[in-house]
Amino acid sequence: MTDVIKIGLLGLGTVGGGTVNVIQRNAAEITRRTGKSLQIVAAAVRDINADRICSTDALELTEDALSIVDNPEIDIVVELMGGTDAAFDLVIRAIGNGKHVVTANKALIAIRGNEIVQAAEQAKVMVAFEAAVAGSIGIIKALREGFSGNQIRSVAGIINGTGNYILTAMGDEHRDFSDVLAEAQALGYAEADPSFDVDGIDAAHKLTIMASLSFGMPLCFDQVFTQGIRDITLADIQMADEFGYRIKHLGIARRTEDGVELRVHPTLVSKEHLLANVNGVMNAVYVDADAAGPSLLYGAGAGADPTASSIVADLVDVARSMGSPATHVPTLGFQASQVEELAVVPQASFRSAYFLRMEVTDQPGVLAEISSIFAALGVSIEAVNQKEPPRGADTASISLITQLTDEAKIINAIGKLEDLSQVASAVNLIRVEQF
Amino acid sequence: MTDVIKIGLLGLGTVGGGTVNVIQRNAAEITRRTGKSLQIVAAAVRDINADRICSTDALELTEDALSIVDNPEIDIVVELMGGTDAAFDLVIRAIGNGKHVVTANKALIAIRGNEIVQAAEQAKVMVAFEAAVAGSIGIIKALREGFSGNQIRSVAGIINGTGNYILTAMGDEHRDFSDVLAEAQALGYAEADPSFDVDGIDAAHKLTIMASLSFGMPLCFDQVFTQGIRDITLADIQMADEFGYRIKHLGIARRTEDGVELRVHPTLVSKEHLLANVNGVMNAVYVDADAAGPSLLYGAGAGADPTASSIVADLVDVARSMGSPATHVPTLGFQASQVEELAVVPQASFRSAYFLRMEVTDQPGVLAEISSIFAALGVSIEAVNQKEPPRGADTASISLITQLTDEAKIINAIGKLEDLSQVASAVNLIRVEQF
Repeated sequence: MTDVIKIGLLGLGTVGGGTVNVIQRNAAEITRRTGKSLQIVAAAVRDINADRICSTDALELTEDALSIVDNPEIDIVVELMGGTDAAFDLVIRAIGNGKHVVTANKALIAIRGNEIVQAAEQAKVMVAFEAAVAGSIGIIKALREGFSGNQIRSVAGIINGTGNYILTAMGDEHRDFSDVLAEAQALGYAEADPSFDVDGIDAAHKLTIMASLSFGMPLCFDQVFTQGIRDITLADIQMADEFGYRIKHLGIARRTEDGVELRVHPTLVSKEHLLANVNGVMNAVYVDADAAGPSLLYGAGAGADPTASSIVADLVDVARSMGSPATHVPTLGFQASQVEELAVVPQASFRSAYFLRMEVTDQPGVLAEISSIFAALGVSIEAVNQKEPPRGADTASISLITQLTDEAKIINAIGKLEDLSQVASAVNLIRVEQF
Repeated sequence: MTDVIKIGLLGLGTVGGGTVNVIQRNAAEITRRTGKSLQIVAAAVRDINADRICSTDALELTEDALSIVDNPEIDIVVELMGGTDAAFDLVIRAIGNGKHVVTANKALIAIRGNEIVQAAEQAKVMVAFEAAVAGSIGIIKALREGFSGNQIRSVAGIINGTGNYILTAMGDEHRDFSDVLAEAQALGYAEADPSFDVDGIDAAHKLTIMASLSFGMPLCFDQVFTQGIRDITLADIQMADEFGYRIKHLGIARRTEDGVELRVHPTLVSKEHLLANVNGVMNAVYVDADAAGPSLLYGAGAGADPTASSIVADLVDVARSMGSPATHVPTLGFQASQVEELAVVPQASFRSAYFLRMEVTDQPGVLAEISSIFAALGVSIEAVNQKEPPRGADTASISLITQLTDEAKIINAIGKLEDLSQVASAVNLIRVEQF
């Protein structure tokens, strides 16, 4: 006899529809694996008459979300509404009703996760969110379970497909940011309001979650240093290329002597590194851990089916362990009592290498002036590239890469550089990651 | 109060010593994560007085392996002896005694795994073997749990670090196989008898395990088509490079209309593909699944600490679920009753693209003769490269890549090619993977 697990969905858009489709298409395989039957019995939707990407024959549609979270028949609630207010209230209510929760909502976990973790702990239910970070790649299970014997030193990921699509196309097709963004919007890869993706907010949500699972610290979205990719120019990408790098929008969490660095920003990555070869809308997370060493997980970061893959994996995990609270993997990968505040390193104390690019008037001695500023601050230069001014132009471009140093020194250097009469532009700064 | 889990090791060499070191070094982190204390209480060794890479202060050493598997205090036995005879008997006995088993022994699982699975099923204990495949990368957990909502279409992996080291060095340093092998042996990357690695046996063990977990089929090592890398020449690597490919030693398991292809062989992989950029001793497995799409896991494939990382992850999983049999993940990822024989596709029915290289006497019309053989068999040619004979030589090299076709046709074509008077060498065949 096969156990039937009853599931209610909050939301039946792309991800909800994908989840219904995957569970229907792969029902036999899922039961062969688990000995259980996953049954989506009901879904709460905004408009019961809207078009769907899935069949709704086998499930009840309702516009009353409470009827899902209060339904005593339902074992697991899958929250796919998005947002952090109504979704939060419904998740907390479902937990209070003793239901397990699966969610793809990164904002909800990043911003209100600590409250949710506490509620789940009290109710002895599971809250699972593999689909909230990097679609199908399985980084949550890896961090919570696969690396359980490790001290994780850092995670660094390409965790926003839209941003990676834009940077990849800029590099491959020598096009400007705004041009590619407009195309991505036309293709549906980017939203009409793209700020969530291109300003790094979405990546910061995901980084918040990965940092918490890596280091056993509370979720602290508001402490993530976040920079988007709007200011990346084609010239930056081409200069980085000449130095042997590609520019990727990374979320980085790293344990240092001073605490934890939490930062989302464009980053130069050596072309030899696997992360530099993750292109288009694909996602990847690089993990450095003391026993495992360097590892990488790569896959589709979004889309109906890939996201559903992670939701179903969570449903299977929950179905397997429900009724046996002692076997639950802790929500944040660490025992709730062992989650500890860690100091978040302020921007001025970041340690990194840096790529700087500036326009200079073409006078003798400008490179000497620039070099002496870095020398005085004790910052070593790794490489310099000075371009001849294009025909008819009166400024040349100078780019350089520093060795590892303190961000405070670089900020100081930029101030001094911009004060030089020969420096004719703002100084562009992009961090360089040396894995 | 922290639960104490008592562990006995069979073997305390590199991996056993690494496991002791990782558990000691990361004891606090492991307990923060799990709420349990992993305690290695005893280890069976061949020579109690041998040098160790770990401290043995906290554990009892014995030369009597039975005293471990029969010890009623011990919850989990970790088998790190290697081999398929004594190790098998001890594992079966441990299972019979109600103990859970963690092993890094790929040969044991690949060759005698079906018996072990059955014994574990009867005794309601767990047998875990993350460390048996690709060191620290976590492919076992991914296949058993992460992809549980998917129909897996194929897995393809670089799953032998020694072979990948050799191929990488041949390509990067333009050296011959035998030269690089000798160096790898001197460095300790390859055994004095390298056949296990370079002839593909080790990779075939790992592929056997991955295929079983991917498709829910019994372990069938003796049905894996296995070809090593001894015959790969520098000329092959250079010609592949000109066509835009690198040569990697892959283990591939793929569901087809006819059953399952199980094959280990050198393979041309497009330079653009992530697998082509996995270098040196690193391992990676590429998974194509119907919902998740393409995914890749990458990391250290061997070594004391990386292997220990996987052993500890297994220990944590077992410690979490022991005592609650209903929550166990099935040993092969599918319910034991649902593991089903699948037809294994014979070599002649493989579908692939092919790279062929041959020496020809430099006469007019030779390319026409060659082309007509393929045309008559209905095999399309994707690309051809004919080299001028080097100064003083009387033969030229012709290489070509076919489109996707049946292996029987290629074997047929090679017979006809080698019968041509103008073909002055055996025809080298290397399969081409088009992901």
